[in-house]
Amino acid sequence: MTDPDTDRHNAKMAKKKAARDKIMATKTDEKGLVIVHTGKGKGKSSSAFGMIFRCIAHDMPCAVVQFIKGGMGTGERDLIIKNFSDLCDFHTMGEGFTWETQDKSRDIEMAQAAWAKAKELIADPVNRMVLLDEINIAIRYDYVDVAEVVTFLRDHKPPMTHVVLTGRNAREELIELADLVTEMELVKHPFRSGVKAQAGVEF
Amino acid sequence: MTDPDTDRHNAKMAKKKAARDKIMATKTDEKGLVIVHTGKGKGKSSSAFGMIFRCIAHDMPCAVVQFIKGGMGTGERDLIIKNFSDLCDFHTMGEGFTWETQDKSRDIEMAQAAWAKAKELIADPVNRMVLLDEINIAIRYDYVDVAEVVTFLRDHKPPMTHVVLTGRNAREELIELADLVTEMELVKHPFRSGVKAQAGVEF
Repeated sequence: MTDPDTDRHNAKMAKKKAARDKIMATKTDEKGLVIVHTGKGKGKSSSAFGMIFRCIAHDMPCAVVQFIKGGMGTGERDLIIKNFSDLCDFHTMGEGFTWETQDKSRDIEMAQAAWAKAKELIADPVNRMVLLDEINIAIRYDYVDVAEVVTFLRDHKPPMTHVVLTGRNAREELIELADLVTEMELVKHPFRSGVKAQAGVEF
Repeated sequence: MTDPDTDRHNAKMAKKKAARDKIMATKTDEKGLVIVHTGKGKGKSSSAFGMIFRCIAHDMPCAVVQFIKGGMGTGERDLIIKNFSDLCDFHTMGEGFTWETQDKSRDIEMAQAAWAKAKELIADPVNRMVLLDEINIAIRYDYVDVAEVVTFLRDHKPPMTHVVLTGRNAREELIELADLVTEMELVKHPFRSGVKAQAGVEF
């Protein structure tokens, strides 16, 4: 029941599989990664939450610090707090975007408190993954010092702990340090044609 | 207790807030969106699953069709099936990457069955969001006809239903149709330095 086209396809795929298997066999290390999601597109926070859900699915203890409450993921937050608080230690520390609060000294205080909590959670080796949601915004405004973040992650992160940092405009120093960096690029957005933020999609 | 620097900052932020509020006030429409996540970077599937979790958090019925089993999200899949099968109708239809199966006619059959299931779920207006995970790969190999997908989404999708299509190499016709397109761009990846896929991060 074979035809030449199918045979060719299958041979090509067998070759592809062999090549892929060979490459994957060289990937043997396990280590805690520093992961950065940045860019203007969607999905920075929600894919980070996806990783948190993966940890939960694998019974891996994990933690989240939200640096900005008005950011993404209120849906995910409610779901985690309601169903999985035994596995995921969830902290919402920020007040909202800084242009919502209009109080710089309070924003700095909040960001510093969130960073202190982040350090505590990362240093505790029970946590296999710690998500610092929207920390890049706090770093960008210099509410948290980028050099301190880089030094802490480099010198004090337990070797097997993954740390995920999200938010647009990630600083170069952080990208330099990171193992895995993804830039979410906006190709097309419905806000441009008058569609508002909707449940399920944006929050 | 104010200083000129803080005053300037607060004034600037107040202006930013006014501008933002004005823009957001023009965004009044609600409609079901066609959403595409593509690119070589991470987060295409996991941010789509993040949206599914948002729907679940809002008690919005939703559905997932996985076109490729070996793709992403086995962690999320297990979590959804175990905890939220009442709200999320989950179908894993594909066998694995085509270079794993090495059987073209079976791959086509699987992709066609997945697409038939997808049409059924999208046409059912009870579903507020339908995720077609890794469908772009099936379309790229022409296992599912892109023109048929575009026509179906344009003419038969209920107006309030969101449909999310993921996978690298999204076809231009699909990007043209979509309301919201994000390209996940790979900036840095640890595979390059010999680190293997790890629980919580990749699956």
